[in-house]
Amino acid sequence: MAEKQKKFVEQITDMNVDFAQWYTDVVKKAELADYSSVKGFMILRPYGFALWEGIQGYLDRRFKETGHTNVYMPMLIPENLLQKEKDHVEGFAPEVAWVTQGGSEELTERLCVRPTSETLFCEHYAKVVQSYNDLPKLYNQWCSVVRWEKTTRPFLRTSEFLWNEGHTVHATEDEAREETIQMLNIYAEAYENVMAIPVIRGIKTDKEKFAGARETYTVEAMMHDGKALQAGTSHYFGTGFAEAFNMTFQDRDGKQKHVHQTSWGLSTRSIGALIMVHGDNRGLVLSPNIAPHQVVIVPIAMHKEGVREKALELQERLKGMGLRVIIDLSDKSAGWKFAEYEMKGIPVRLEMGPKDIEQQQVVLVRRDSAEKEFVALEALEERLTFLMKDIHESLFEKAKKNLQEHTYVAHTMEELKTLEEEKPGFIKAMWCGDRACEERIKEEAGLTSRCIPFEGEAVGETCACCGKKAEHLVVWGKAY
Amino acid sequence: MAEKQKKFVEQITDMNVDFAQWYTDVVKKAELADYSSVKGFMILRPYGFALWEGIQGYLDRRFKETGHTNVYMPMLIPENLLQKEKDHVEGFAPEVAWVTQGGSEELTERLCVRPTSETLFCEHYAKVVQSYNDLPKLYNQWCSVVRWEKTTRPFLRTSEFLWNEGHTVHATEDEAREETIQMLNIYAEAYENVMAIPVIRGIKTDKEKFAGARETYTVEAMMHDGKALQAGTSHYFGTGFAEAFNMTFQDRDGKQKHVHQTSWGLSTRSIGALIMVHGDNRGLVLSPNIAPHQVVIVPIAMHKEGVREKALELQERLKGMGLRVIIDLSDKSAGWKFAEYEMKGIPVRLEMGPKDIEQQQVVLVRRDSAEKEFVALEALEERLTFLMKDIHESLFEKAKKNLQEHTYVAHTMEELKTLEEEKPGFIKAMWCGDRACEERIKEEAGLTSRCIPFEGEAVGETCACCGKKAEHLVVWGKAY
Repeated sequence: MAEKQKKFVEQITDMNVDFAQWYTDVVKKAELADYSSVKGFMILRPYGFALWEGIQGYLDRRFKETGHTNVYMPMLIPENLLQKEKDHVEGFAPEVAWVTQGGSEELTERLCVRPTSETLFCEHYAKVVQSYNDLPKLYNQWCSVVRWEKTTRPFLRTSEFLWNEGHTVHATEDEAREETIQMLNIYAEAYENVMAIPVIRGIKTDKEKFAGARETYTVEAMMHDGKALQAGTSHYFGTGFAEAFNMTFQDRDGKQKHVHQTSWGLSTRSIGALIMVHGDNRGLVLSPNIAPHQVVIVPIAMHKEGVREKALELQERLKGMGLRVIIDLSDKSAGWKFAEYEMKGIPVRLEMGPKDIEQQQVVLVRRDSAEKEFVALEALEERLTFLMKDIHESLFEKAKKNLQEHTYVAHTMEELKTLEEEKPGFIKAMWCGDRACEERIKEEAGLTSRCIPFEGEAVGETCACCGKKAEHLVVWGKAY
Repeated sequence: MAEKQKKFVEQITDMNVDFAQWYTDVVKKAELADYSSVKGFMILRPYGFALWEGIQGYLDRRFKETGHTNVYMPMLIPENLLQKEKDHVEGFAPEVAWVTQGGSEELTERLCVRPTSETLFCEHYAKVVQSYNDLPKLYNQWCSVVRWEKTTRPFLRTSEFLWNEGHTVHATEDEAREETIQMLNIYAEAYENVMAIPVIRGIKTDKEKFAGARETYTVEAMMHDGKALQAGTSHYFGTGFAEAFNMTFQDRDGKQKHVHQTSWGLSTRSIGALIMVHGDNRGLVLSPNIAPHQVVIVPIAMHKEGVREKALELQERLKGMGLRVIIDLSDKSAGWKFAEYEMKGIPVRLEMGPKDIEQQQVVLVRRDSAEKEFVALEALEERLTFLMKDIHESLFEKAKKNLQEHTYVAHTMEELKTLEEEKPGFIKAMWCGDRACEERIKEEAGLTSRCIPFEGEAVGETCACCGKKAEHLVVWGKAY
């Protein structure tokens, strides 16, 4: 079959030969995204956007279940507002786009297109929060943000991307800290339950944390090539922004206090992870939980009497099960269709020809394993119900195994350097907590700290860089 | 009761004294929107955004049912791309915001923040459409757009607003025209079925049509003060953009042809209509089909044993019916709560105190009519099911009656002027089709043509302005 298909589709680059080109090929051939004449900006095509809708749908439901409401803030931020929190403006000012003209008038103060909206939320909260009765405020926003990038890659790094940004304020530090972790866990669940991607949860080092945050928590995923993708972050701000924006409330004890604040974001980068964790040389591979189409029916020998009708009947039956099913009745060849839907990562393909109809069966092919089986029509519902679960679990287990097998341990700089050169993956190594060591590891071994993981035991007692007493286990890697 | 409530809430301006101030008061007191330090830009607060989610949810489902898919285009448009279609750029250039700096570099070509995205869709379609097999393309985008405004009012006119913009290309003129009307009808249904707002469907005169469109169709609604709100538009472009952007395809006959194009949009202005059609001196009034909360339970004498528990039990029961129900267990007074939820337009209030519990009943108050009734607990499900439908229908009928009663007929300029001065509302008058007459009616009577309605019989044979042979019945009005 593989040989036959080659005739019908242009090949994509072998992922083991050139992973970066393979990635670009999949984005293009699976029709996920495209470029426009706006340099560095991406078009999300229908199939790519449908993946985002899947992620967004899950997250939006979970946000609401945990008491959050959606709002919408302006897309432009006045320069003086952006500058109110010192660390924040230093982090973002170099990469924002500036609006200097509105209609026919030159603006007296330039406005930046939001790179993130902390400042706007702070300004609003300062206005609407007066008393402990008004707390907590648990707001979220779905929008696009702009961060000017010199070199871009679809989903992974573009000058504009879509995301959610949650911003909450609380009466106590404990409550804000709980929120920060709760939202990180919801991100982890979205990866695990929807995208079948295992993630490492942890805290960022000071060097890697968000501009203005006291602490940044992260979920980190490993791509097929061993590189890391920062897949979602949740920040605890303490009262830093509250002080800069004068966000106070009268507490139960009658005293004026600053609110404790969080923010958390997950973006269309997640689609990059989806591609790079599960994809193979035939294209995308999707979990049924995120797949826009879970099943595709390809009728065989459609000119034969009854084939078309039986295939349409089958589609209705499976739709009745609540499955997302498409059927391809076009006059393209079966080989073309097989390759096309494999490229799109549709979890299950059903083939049905005259002989199958006669024998009351279908041919079922799993996208993840390429296993082929004959399934009696009367047993199909049961089999598909099983597969929708099993394919998700198999993908997750496979990715988890890959993550574990490509996680190494280093005790010295030499070992870090050798691993970096020879074994693409994550490296666990102890760290003293000194920024100088972190910077040296980056310079000499080309590795960045991904996070201090919540789980994981010490792999030594001394810093792999300086040999002094170790404070933390750190996961190191090369990142997208 | 009215007297008692006054003690608990600040009054809003009487709508019959100052309708504009009443509107602003409702927006503020119902916590729908707020201003930020970005002049002319609006914050959609949780309750306002929830209304938008209600409208968006309905439309998104209808778009998908009719074969459309969502995509996302860049938010910035290069100046040369905006300029490709002559009429289009003339219409929009004066009101766009320009990005001139990205990161630390001055841009060589300035980019405008999208005021609408025809040009980006055209560029993309020109690339991905080659053959009749690729048609139609039925794309939609949910996003915000920026149009620089000098004077703004929340929802009605702001420098940024949220909307959907659908953009489709077709192989034939017939199909594109059918699409244009289909989408206009979906907008009309959203107003009628979700918001309980009757609309007039019709076609815009050339003077009022969209920049670059061959024809613009519109749904027009009448506000409580008799003024018109253009509530949604659907445009047929013919091949104008296709020629400017070289959007061609190879047809079945082997010939290269230009695609036929449409676009259609509905925005957060719709929330302005919701407020101004149904609202009254106690605030918002919502149909159960759009209300974020359909029922509010207010326990009375909560300190009495069992009240709190019974009220919570009731909430669970009603949630089980699929109703969106909230309960207010705060220690605020019942009077404060009544006023608060009336301001928010919650369709049904249920009061439950010790006496009600004893008698196995609740007190039920409709927001739209303020009618109060005692309902036996065992009959409550049935009663609420009825009311969810009846309140919607009553609101719709009331608004329709208002529309009909404030629609007048004029045969001459004198009559137009007199009606404009004395009777706020819509005026039906015949028109010769000459732009000069339309402009004179605007100058002398202060009326704009809202549309040439699909339905409605001629009210005369000569143009109300020039007296020449009439070509069209036009609905005239003053518009937001």
